[in-house]
Amino acid sequence: MPEVIFGQGKTPAQVAEIFARLARHGGNVLATRADRRQFAAVKKKVRAVTYSDQARAITLLQDRKTYGKGTIAVVSAGTSDIPVAEEAAVTAGIMGNAVARLYDVGVAGIHRLLAHGPALAEARVVIVCAGMEGALPSVVGGLVGVPVIAVPTSVGYGAAFQGMAALLGMMNSCASNVSVVNIDNGFGAGYVAALINRL
Amino acid sequence: MPEVIFGQGKTPAQVAEIFARLARHGGNVLATRADRRQFAAVKKKVRAVTYSDQARAITLLQDRKTYGKGTIAVVSAGTSDIPVAEEAAVTAGIMGNAVARLYDVGVAGIHRLLAHGPALAEARVVIVCAGMEGALPSVVGGLVGVPVIAVPTSVGYGAAFQGMAALLGMMNSCASNVSVVNIDNGFGAGYVAALINRL
Amino acid sequence: MPEVIFGQGKTPAQVAEIFARLARHGGNVLATRADRRQFAAVKKKVRAVTYSDQARAITLLQDRKTYGKGTIAVVSAGTSDIPVAEEAAVTAGIMGNAVARLYDVGVAGIHRLLAHGPALAEARVVIVCAGMEGALPSVVGGLVGVPVIAVPTSVGYGAAFQGMAALLGMMNSCASNVSVVNIDNGFGAGYVAALINRL
Amino acid sequence: MPEVIFGQGKTPAQVAEIFARLARHGGNVLATRADRRQFAAVKKKVRAVTYSDQARAITLLQDRKTYGKGTIAVVSAGTSDIPVAEEAAVTAGIMGNAVARLYDVGVAGIHRLLAHGPALAEARVVIVCAGMEGALPSVVGGLVGVPVIAVPTSVGYGAAFQGMAALLGMMNSCASNVSVVNIDNGFGAGYVAALINRL
Amino acid sequence: MPEVIFGQGKTPAQVAEIFARLARHGGNVLATRADRRQFAAVKKKVRAVTYSDQARAITLLQDRKTYGKGTIAVVSAGTSDIPVAEEAAVTAGIMGNAVARLYDVGVAGIHRLLAHGPALAEARVVIVCAGMEGALPSVVGGLVGVPVIAVPTSVGYGAAFQGMAALLGMMNSCASNVSVVNIDNGFGAGYVAALINRL
Amino acid sequence: MPEVIFGQGKTPAQVAEIFARLARHGGNVLATRADRRQFAAVKKKVRAVTYSDQARAITLLQDRKTYGKGTIAVVSAGTSDIPVAEEAAVTAGIMGNAVARLYDVGVAGIHRLLAHGPALAEARVVIVCAGMEGALPSVVGGLVGVPVIAVPTSVGYGAAFQGMAALLGMMNSCASNVSVVNIDNGFGAGYVAALINRL
Amino acid sequence: MPEVIFGQGKTPAQVAEIFARLARHGGNVLATRADRRQFAAVKKKVRAVTYSDQARAITLLQDRKTYGKGTIAVVSAGTSDIPVAEEAAVTAGIMGNAVARLYDVGVAGIHRLLAHGPALAEARVVIVCAGMEGALPSVVGGLVGVPVIAVPTSVGYGAAFQGMAALLGMMNSCASNVSVVNIDNGFGAGYVAALINRL
Amino acid sequence: MPEVIFGQGKTPAQVAEIFARLARHGGNVLATRADRRQFAAVKKKVRAVTYSDQARAITLLQDRKTYGKGTIAVVSAGTSDIPVAEEAAVTAGIMGNAVARLYDVGVAGIHRLLAHGPALAEARVVIVCAGMEGALPSVVGGLVGVPVIAVPTSVGYGAAFQGMAALLGMMNSCASNVSVVNIDNGFGAGYVAALINRL
Repeated sequence: MPEVIFGQGKTPAQVAEIFARLARHGGNVLATRADRRQFAAVKKKVRAVTYSDQARAITLLQDRKTYGKGTIAVVSAGTSDIPVAEEAAVTAGIMGNAVARLYDVGVAGIHRLLAHGPALAEARVVIVCAGMEGALPSVVGGLVGVPVIAVPTSVGYGAAFQGMAALLGMMNSCASNVSVVNIDNGFGAGYVAALINRL
Repeated sequence: MPEVIFGQGKTPAQVAEIFARLARHGGNVLATRADRRQFAAVKKKVRAVTYSDQARAITLLQDRKTYGKGTIAVVSAGTSDIPVAEEAAVTAGIMGNAVARLYDVGVAGIHRLLAHGPALAEARVVIVCAGMEGALPSVVGGLVGVPVIAVPTSVGYGAAFQGMAALLGMMNSCASNVSVVNIDNGFGAGYVAALINRL
Repeated sequence: MPEVIFGQGKTPAQVAEIFARLARHGGNVLATRADRRQFAAVKKKVRAVTYSDQARAITLLQDRKTYGKGTIAVVSAGTSDIPVAEEAAVTAGIMGNAVARLYDVGVAGIHRLLAHGPALAEARVVIVCAGMEGALPSVVGGLVGVPVIAVPTSVGYGAAFQGMAALLGMMNSCASNVSVVNIDNGFGAGYVAALINRL
Repeated sequence: MPEVIFGQGKTPAQVAEIFARLARHGGNVLATRADRRQFAAVKKKVRAVTYSDQARAITLLQDRKTYGKGTIAVVSAGTSDIPVAEEAAVTAGIMGNAVARLYDVGVAGIHRLLAHGPALAEARVVIVCAGMEGALPSVVGGLVGVPVIAVPTSVGYGAAFQGMAALLGMMNSCASNVSVVNIDNGFGAGYVAALINRL
Repeated sequence: MPEVIFGQGKTPAQVAEIFARLARHGGNVLATRADRRQFAAVKKKVRAVTYSDQARAITLLQDRKTYGKGTIAVVSAGTSDIPVAEEAAVTAGIMGNAVARLYDVGVAGIHRLLAHGPALAEARVVIVCAGMEGALPSVVGGLVGVPVIAVPTSVGYGAAFQGMAALLGMMNSCASNVSVVNIDNGFGAGYVAALINRL
Repeated sequence: MPEVIFGQGKTPAQVAEIFARLARHGGNVLATRADRRQFAAVKKKVRAVTYSDQARAITLLQDRKTYGKGTIAVVSAGTSDIPVAEEAAVTAGIMGNAVARLYDVGVAGIHRLLAHGPALAEARVVIVCAGMEGALPSVVGGLVGVPVIAVPTSVGYGAAFQGMAALLGMMNSCASNVSVVNIDNGFGAGYVAALINRL
Repeated sequence: MPEVIFGQGKTPAQVAEIFARLARHGGNVLATRADRRQFAAVKKKVRAVTYSDQARAITLLQDRKTYGKGTIAVVSAGTSDIPVAEEAAVTAGIMGNAVARLYDVGVAGIHRLLAHGPALAEARVVIVCAGMEGALPSVVGGLVGVPVIAVPTSVGYGAAFQGMAALLGMMNSCASNVSVVNIDNGFGAGYVAALINRL
Repeated sequence: MPEVIFGQGKTPAQVAEIFARLARHGGNVLATRADRRQFAAVKKKVRAVTYSDQARAITLLQDRKTYGKGTIAVVSAGTSDIPVAEEAAVTAGIMGNAVARLYDVGVAGIHRLLAHGPALAEARVVIVCAGMEGALPSVVGGLVGVPVIAVPTSVGYGAAFQGMAALLGMMNSCASNVSVVNIDNGFGAGYVAALINRL
């Protein structure tokens, strides 16, 4: 298992200090919700780290073994959902999984999603990120026979209520293979998917 | 335009009295949210009425002219949504429209919906009824280029919150051609669709 | 149909790049929720664009054909609702519709609204934007016999809850010809109205 | 001031006992939210009481003096709002006021309301009862220059949320002369109006 | 009646322009939710205006006649409620009323409120402003026999939910003489109270 | 400590069986939310039990020792709050405490509460039960210098939202000595108060 | 995969007819939210069915093969959560899984849960059902390194809001291996767990 | 009792002026929700004050007597909860209590909490601060036999809803010895605990 730091609300110095300490354990280290200033501070102490702007994540890959037995597909509805999707993908990746990204396949253009049928069919676990009406996990859930982890995102405005509409939609999914994590919790989805893919 | 009575909360005698009075105007009459006891009371005064169990509607068809210029498609997600869908269909019908019913085509079985592609393509207006996550209008909206009237239903349990989850989902639809009426308001959807189809 | 970009959350460079690409298709292009800086960036690449401060919209009119068969009336309650109303009006305009603007006719001054009776009577579709108690669509709905698209706005304070009070009010409209789009979604209202006006 | 009993949740015997005791003070007595069984029990002890089915109120008029200096107008939107309106009217009446009832003048038929202009203009205080979108107080508030007491009712379904939509609407009224009491609280509205009319 | 401008969201130039125009009518003018920059802009055009920091109000007093027949008491719970209370007091004042201010008399120090008994007893209308639990109107309502206008304020944190807790509390007041206006709506309370005091 | 059974949702046979088993431990036993049928079933197995209709509680007193060092005052606002207040009082009583009941002292009649000053001053802990606006704990909290346990009750209608209004009010109490338990949780309040009184 | 019928809201005849039809496919059949009358109707058509009172489920076991590779642990907090837990357990069982039941191990008696450490450690997937504060999944999630499916139940009263409190708690779990299904959705949890256990 | 100032929203000058005035009474003074600029202003007037960054509190200790009869344990779940926990600890301290801090013992690592068993067992009152799912008070409540004051914190994101999820969780605690104060109200918890510890 990687060591994980929740970057938000911490100073660059704090993140760097914790990151360096955890790095000494020899395993992988992940800082989520991290910004470029935190990355710069970490980089000074731990040269091998990399940063993903989209995922807002600092990663240190010391253990390159593959733990997952199949592929984890990460599906997202719109462009604005990509940061959350990337957080999930990076998390799954650092936990030793092959990840397939299927982005920008929202339900209002269903044929684009269907065109990805083969990639979906190959996945052992699927993560679906969507804001606004949060309908995508139900459609994906109906297309695959494996567990689907749904992540509501805070994308949208007005009656989206910062992701509450998507969260409620996903909780009520008519597909039986869907379970849900917190709004914008890409890390949690990647973590749960990685645990499943190890089995 | 038909005369309309909201049956719920009225006694059979009240519905019968109002219905008979409106029937004298010579046009069509519709009582929504009506039960069999109300129907029996109306039937005694107005012999030509009929009753739909599924739509819970009493109808009197005195004006058989067609006012709609095309077909109105009524789409519903699950079996439990049919009463609302039928209320919409009966309303559109009594207002002089051809109605195509596409039921039981929820998003978790997307291929069933896609199989109805030709029927959807022919519709001039589409009504979509769905409870639980309320995702169907977004998918249908992406498949057609005409106005879609979405009706959230109170179907579901737990976090469905009597239709609130579906309502919020539909308000946030990523399809631009969707507008929404009140929870379980099949009548309103049928009425708006009929107005559009007259244009 | 015009090509549409949701400007909010995108950088000026991103908007300009997408806008220029879409402009090559030869049709109209609309960027909503766009600011002056985004406009400046687009203007450098596509000289013919114009900007509306009130609608916060960048528009490129390459197809000047009229598609709508009648007039779309855009009605708004207060001065603060005008940005949403203008977004609806600009959207309807770029989709080839004649638009009549009836602004500042809130329900607390009912005679001002009634004075616009003839303009309302001529409309083939009506868009109504209102915040606070969101009462205007019901009154307008009762005055006209055509479809009314209601847009709750986030105007108000306290128990307005960023448009939720207006949204709930409009969902419960006692006028049967009203359907509703998301809070502040002037674009959606203009789009739906344009689709209806093409029929 | 009359003595007042909140009948709901009390046994007929309890209501009768309290009513009889209060009646001995010599003033008027009012039991609200009272049913016919409670009335029967009271009637056995206090012969002079009367019962209003619509207002669900038991009243004893021992003090017939007029305390109000003008007329209180009670306005209601739909038929289903009448019980609340009548509770307000009966309360105002037993407190010594002339009451003018203007019922069934909802905002979707604005001309019916306007036809009552003279009656409204004569009122010294106006009570407005409405469910669903709760828009009526704003319109009435704009027509008169006197205080308006708004009463949201639990009439409606779906997104009406048992009167919450109407309550929020009235709290956000764009008319400055409106204040609000609790959902279905016809008694409170009548009481406040009577206090104002005594001034 | 004074002319009233809602200052929030308007530029200094806009407020100044409207203010100057309304001032020419010869009556009093009030701009609420106004800041010092707006005041400076108005002052350049209309020399006689004054500004209240606490009430955040710009006032022009051209009609000094007294219209109110008695005193309006403005009661507030805590120091943070004073801006709302002052908005109510300034509004009542500019409408020609004698105003008595009873500030900082929250319910957790009930004896301080009781010490103001004589001032309360003399009032013809009472305005009560309170945030947090919003309990003060019920206590004041029980102490006086005149109409009480309750104003929930957005004072508090956590479960105060920006005034929603106070609003719900006041809607459920066990005192029958209480009606409620929107959160932080001191202007509305002052306006309603002034209308009542004119009767 | 007494043994406690939550009676609601259990059959009379289940309550009786559990009660009899717990009674063998020799200590006191309390069944809350219990009805008369459950009492009858218990009575057959454990002759010494008593039943309180108001508290809806079955009690077996086998340990009559006094554990509390002072008096616990139980204060309630209205008649309808008494079942919750009695559940608190019976719980405190069976845990070995002297209990002083101060009922029907709602905030709209503040002088009745103040008349109980001496009884309040003597209490070592105070429990306050109130529905509707839930204002009583703040007033009581200001009168005493000891811990106050507030219990919101589900008494009220409309915007009381089954106790949510009272709960929010109490959470925002301006008195610093107030903490809160769940809606209608008289048992919890009695239990916490008894723990405090043992110290 | 078993065939599944949602029994609630269907007549005994409807359930029996669907059940018999699905049974002919030769696989397992499960009817959830089913009562004894529905069971009796099914039993007449399909003799081999059994009924679980606790799970409210009708099951037909025609395929006795084991599909799950390890044990699924079903953990529940209180006695009232058992119906939901049993629905999960029966679902997992009919899908060919070994199930370990760990009931009545709520967080307020943490040592009882810890005593089940070995059983938890052996599980390949864990389902946790809890109402009220919904805290159990976080504690269990911290004790195991495998996926945890959390099911909020509608157990509780007052501020439990029919499972909303538990749902929100579980969405915010501080344990990274927790995902959540709808309130009372034991079936969904069992289904997802079975899919995971097949991998 | 110490004198207490709520610093938030006050200017440095205001805080300094009030603080200095209260300091003259000779007792302890506490300013909560205070920042470093306010501290600097106070320091100029009252040299003996100290500031706690974590608690955001300015304290003046003039009365060093111990009033509490035992130890108050302050328990917190995560690092982000420490400001609230420290506010509670500082409040209890300035009111004359011995305080034991048990931080960073969240429920997902239950063995860390259990390792603090002896410290918990010695406490006479326990304060528990937790955000996110707010589960910690239930676990702690089950481990001790003394009163537990629970403080929900606004820590978390998404469905944490600024502490509402934690608040609802704590209100529904299955441990009977738990009562709750407002979100982030560390001061209130410390105050109530100190009152209890004086008994």
